[in-house]
Amino acid sequence: MEQIDFAAPEFPSTPFLCVDAGIMDRNLSAMAQRAAAVGVALRPHAKTHKVPQIARRQLELGAVGLTVATLGEAEVFADAGCTDLFLAYPLWVTAARAARITALAERSRLRIGIDSPEGAHELGRALAGSTVAVMVEVDSGHHRSGCRPEDAGAVAWAARENGLAVAGVFTFPGHGYGPGNRAPAAAQEAAALSAASASLAAVGVHGGIVSGGSTPTAASADATVLNEIRPGVYVFNDAQQVELGTCGWDAVALCAVATVVSSSGRNVILDAGSKVLGADQPPWATGGGRILGIPEARIIALSEHHATVAFPDGTALPRRGDTLQAVPNHVCAAVNLADELVVIRDGAMIDAWAVAARGRNN
Amino acid sequence: MEQIDFAAPEFPSTPFLCVDAGIMDRNLSAMAQRAAAVGVALRPHAKTHKVPQIARRQLELGAVGLTVATLGEAEVFADAGCTDLFLAYPLWVTAARAARITALAERSRLRIGIDSPEGAHELGRALAGSTVAVMVEVDSGHHRSGCRPEDAGAVAWAARENGLAVAGVFTFPGHGYGPGNRAPAAAQEAAALSAASASLAAVGVHGGIVSGGSTPTAASADATVLNEIRPGVYVFNDAQQVELGTCGWDAVALCAVATVVSSSGRNVILDAGSKVLGADQPPWATGGGRILGIPEARIIALSEHHATVAFPDGTALPRRGDTLQAVPNHVCAAVNLADELVVIRDGAMIDAWAVAARGRNN
Repeated sequence: MEQIDFAAPEFPSTPFLCVDAGIMDRNLSAMAQRAAAVGVALRPHAKTHKVPQIARRQLELGAVGLTVATLGEAEVFADAGCTDLFLAYPLWVTAARAARITALAERSRLRIGIDSPEGAHELGRALAGSTVAVMVEVDSGHHRSGCRPEDAGAVAWAARENGLAVAGVFTFPGHGYGPGNRAPAAAQEAAALSAASASLAAVGVHGGIVSGGSTPTAASADATVLNEIRPGVYVFNDAQQVELGTCGWDAVALCAVATVVSSSGRNVILDAGSKVLGADQPPWATGGGRILGIPEARIIALSEHHATVAFPDGTALPRRGDTLQAVPNHVCAAVNLADELVVIRDGAMIDAWAVAARGRNN
Repeated sequence: MEQIDFAAPEFPSTPFLCVDAGIMDRNLSAMAQRAAAVGVALRPHAKTHKVPQIARRQLELGAVGLTVATLGEAEVFADAGCTDLFLAYPLWVTAARAARITALAERSRLRIGIDSPEGAHELGRALAGSTVAVMVEVDSGHHRSGCRPEDAGAVAWAARENGLAVAGVFTFPGHGYGPGNRAPAAAQEAAALSAASASLAAVGVHGGIVSGGSTPTAASADATVLNEIRPGVYVFNDAQQVELGTCGWDAVALCAVATVVSSSGRNVILDAGSKVLGADQPPWATGGGRILGIPEARIIALSEHHATVAFPDGTALPRRGDTLQAVPNHVCAAVNLADELVVIRDGAMIDAWAVAARGRNN
């Protein structure tokens, strides 16, 4: 991002989240081009941005649809006119949720994740007669949800037996979020999805979609196996992606604009704490986020409304009242804390986007 | 909390935050009685709950006013009729903020933290002629904001020179959030506040209020020095407070109601992740939160919409569709993610409170 006078009257008081639309557009285009070049469909995960205006831009650039994490998110994006949604989650479908899903499926193509024969049975019973299809989730090494790849056929079989169309298989290689893990995680992703596809074929189910991908692994996605990727973070990027080497600083499109409110020695205190940046801090991170344009600074502590930023000897120390641009470690968490994103282009504020799906966790 | 049928139709779909009003009332009364018994004023920090209904209950039980962290929070509570607010933060006051402060000071007594002579000068200039008083923040060992105790007099002097009334001194002993740290932090708090008071007296300023306290240190607060405490978390408590020994499980008044959506071996996956529980995890915590009623379970991983909960051999393994009550590590962070708190009493849902000051970070 450029140097901008965030004290200008058009900006809100700090702290606030700011998106550089020019950088975001470049990120969106680059991922769309990369997917097209290797011949995989792009279905971005909208949990990162939660903003219909951004979803529409992704679709304009060729995304085949959106991925979402919750039914509430799906409803927000369907309301915004997105008509192809994949709810990549092994949802527990109560009667209340079944009614919402049925209503949603009338205005959008909808696929839902399942990862067990029991889940297939329950979903089939709850959604009898609906047009909802399922995607079988497999574990490729992240060890969260997802069945073993060799069990994918049994899950798919159960889905079909319970009246559900099977659209394909998917995985989330979340273990790619670690130094040096991107390529190995992408290889495990391909192996797991390949085994899952074979497992489906062995029971006579041919779903078609083979979906993986995340921002760190997208560049290594094996297009001989995958035909769809679902990165989310790439729209904005964040300190984690920079520290993992997935992107450079010039691809960071979102920051928290914060004001120096106090200082002590070589430490300054910003007014953006964990209630703005989020508290995510993997063991390999260098701190609680980074400062745009001052790569040597370190966020050594975060409390709710304070970031303590250490400046090494020899670096210019900001003064009380100065604004800094803090880059969150995990941008999905930061966006989920904000009601609104301030949008700039070429150094001027051009818009403010409501984070429409914020807090829609159920 | 009691065993409750959270699948009953009056409850929303999981995940959602649930407050047991009976337990909350006991927590509020116990802290009010403790403060009264030792003769200190109670000014609860409302950043924990952000709910006017709870603030009113705290005031009914004898709290002298509220503490808030941001101007936006102050405005929400003033709108709700709270007329005595302490903004415990070294605010950077722009012209826009000065106008908001002046408007706020017309409907509520307002005090604001300062921690430097420069801050006093800026605040005095921005708020010329207003009724806002200041409190001098000192560092008692948490090393965040706050001047050295021996410099408090210089800050207070600068405030008076710039036309600001000085109401007293305060500190936040946040380093009490660690195993075995409560009593030592409380002792440092008392020493710092005592030195700060002496520093004020040496320049002829007699503020009157000597304010400290946090939930972990409140029970050890030295009433020979302090005459006000500002705990916040005690209203609900959380996994951190249980693990620090500040409270027992029977004082935990808030949980995230979550559903088991998947399992693998002895691990089950809940639908409440870091976007519901928050990602706070101090090094001494046993995991990403706790499970109410199942103390041996451990939240070994949190992603945005998944909590991975490990159940030791010999414990009953919940099944897909079962609901569990996850206790966040840091309740302030969890509440700040929710738009609404579901309220139960005697096992039945009685209300839903809007988290009115959620996201009001500026």
